[in-house]
Amino acid sequence: MSSPEPSPGFVSLVSAGPGDPELLTLKAARRLAEAEVVLFDDLASGPVLDHAAARAELIAVGKRAGRPSARQDAVNRLIVDHARQGRRVVRLKSGDSGIFGRLEEELTALVEAGIPFEIIPGVTSASAAAAAAGMPLTRRLTARRVQFVTGADVTGHLPEDVNWAALADPHATTAVFMGQRSFPKLVTGLLAHGMSPDTPALFAEAIGHPQQRLVHTTIAELARAMETAEVVQPGLILYGPLAGHPGPDPALPLP
Amino acid sequence: MSSPEPSPGFVSLVSAGPGDPELLTLKAARRLAEAEVVLFDDLASGPVLDHAAARAELIAVGKRAGRPSARQDAVNRLIVDHARQGRRVVRLKSGDSGIFGRLEEELTALVEAGIPFEIIPGVTSASAAAAAAGMPLTRRLTARRVQFVTGADVTGHLPEDVNWAALADPHATTAVFMGQRSFPKLVTGLLAHGMSPDTPALFAEAIGHPQQRLVHTTIAELARAMETAEVVQPGLILYGPLAGHPGPDPALPLP
Ligand SMILES: C[S@@+](CC[C@H](N)C(=O)[O-])C[C@H]1O[C@@H](n2cnc3c(N)ncnc32)[C@H](O)[C@@H]1O
Ligand SMILES: C[S@@+](CC[C@H](N)C(=O)[O-])C[C@H]1O[C@@H](n2cnc3c(N)ncnc32)[C@H](O)[C@@H]1O
Repeated sequence: MSSPEPSPGFVSLVSAGPGDPELLTLKAARRLAEAEVVLFDDLASGPVLDHAAARAELIAVGKRAGRPSARQDAVNRLIVDHARQGRRVVRLKSGDSGIFGRLEEELTALVEAGIPFEIIPGVTSASAAAAAAGMPLTRRLTARRVQFVTGADVTGHLPEDVNWAALADPHATTAVFMGQRSFPKLVTGLLAHGMSPDTPALFAEAIGHPQQRLVHTTIAELARAMETAEVVQPGLILYGPLAGHPGPDPALPLP
Repeated sequence: MSSPEPSPGFVSLVSAGPGDPELLTLKAARRLAEAEVVLFDDLASGPVLDHAAARAELIAVGKRAGRPSARQDAVNRLIVDHARQGRRVVRLKSGDSGIFGRLEEELTALVEAGIPFEIIPGVTSASAAAAAAGMPLTRRLTARRVQFVTGADVTGHLPEDVNWAALADPHATTAVFMGQRSFPKLVTGLLAHGMSPDTPALFAEAIGHPQQRLVHTTIAELARAMETAEVVQPGLILYGPLAGHPGPDPALPLP
């Protein structure tokens, strides 16, 4: 006689937004409140976790140490193991979970294990950075395309197969994720492919966190600054015609 | 003797998300609850408006009739006029307000009128469509870039200056907004620029609404279907290697 299979739990792959706990969606906040286990990334921690119930087990994953692939396998295993115990699992990922978040690996693990899941979309840090700077991501005629790219492949370097025609386009807004270290190299390529060194750039650090910092500059100047800068906070680089946008006047009273 | 200037109101440019009222951020819900006037678009209506206080004046703008530019000027004027009466105004825009939302025109009008404002970012329908389909927007190695483009310029047609190298890239995920009518023309160009007719495509209609519909197909097949299809609901087209992603198994129980 075989023992009955325990019913599988349920996994919500929840997008946490950029860090401001008020930029969580209502659905994400509800799933956190209902969760029995929350597996969270470094970038999806802090005050957003206050939405979890007191009884929930909170587990930090995605430690900065270790080989990325080994780490990802371990995370996949943790999610599946907790769900197999019949628990309501929230896997909390920063920004929008579908954007540079290794979501695919976790989805595949869940599908293979036959565990039911859902994905809750969220506010990507690119949208939050633009909003904080008072900058739209698109504009009719001058910025009809917006693209999100990564400045670091699995080895931590600029990917080899950059689509330069796409990235050096003066009529697009580009948001570079994980791009601080490789930005000088990226700009060398952009300039070689005809982009103006004076293309406006916005450096957006720790968006939605108390230490938020916005710097308006140009791609050439930012590349120079990045040569020597230490990377201490998560940061996004946005460049294109809209990145020089004035934004909310800091002289005006804000609530 | 001049009469005292009334103190200017405050305008929150609020992103409403794709339509599901639970995909509003906590901040957006709070601003709606505090608002005295809510100026909303067609696509930012329905149950999301239930978050507004009963006393709030709700004003539909962005009627489908009239020349787009005249309409936009009228909207700008309405926002400024209500704020000048010292009121707390919410300008509610669908998805993320910075993406194909004519945000720039409204920002410029506010800056010129000297009215204080803020932008609250939100969940773009592209993120919501991908999440509903169980599809990440990026994947290491195979889809390192995601781009949002418009299928309709101010005249309603495919823009003339399409960056084909960017759009026909087999290693990117592309989300086409307002692209149902022009998709056959877009695909003609993509094929001419070397893209495979079998590139996976996802047609995502009315995401986050009760009538939500997801169709997995290829760019060539979808272009054929769009030749004769009537456009009745807002729809997004996503194409690229991830658009064929299996997604949550519909046979598995969902909450
Ligand atoms: C692994 S990716 C995850 C991106 C996330 N899924 C999103 O949609 O924002 C991490 C990178 O996102 C960017 N990032 C995430 N949160 C950020 C924040 N609050 N401020 C600035 N950049 C952020 C940084 O470029 C960081 O290196
Ligand atoms: C004027 S644009 C606004 C886009 C919005 N700012 C966003 O971030 O989703 C309107 C287009 O967005 C897409 N869209 C908006 N809401 C949608 C939904 N709920 N389902 C599918 N597509 C949607 C459609 O392509 C529609 O024609």
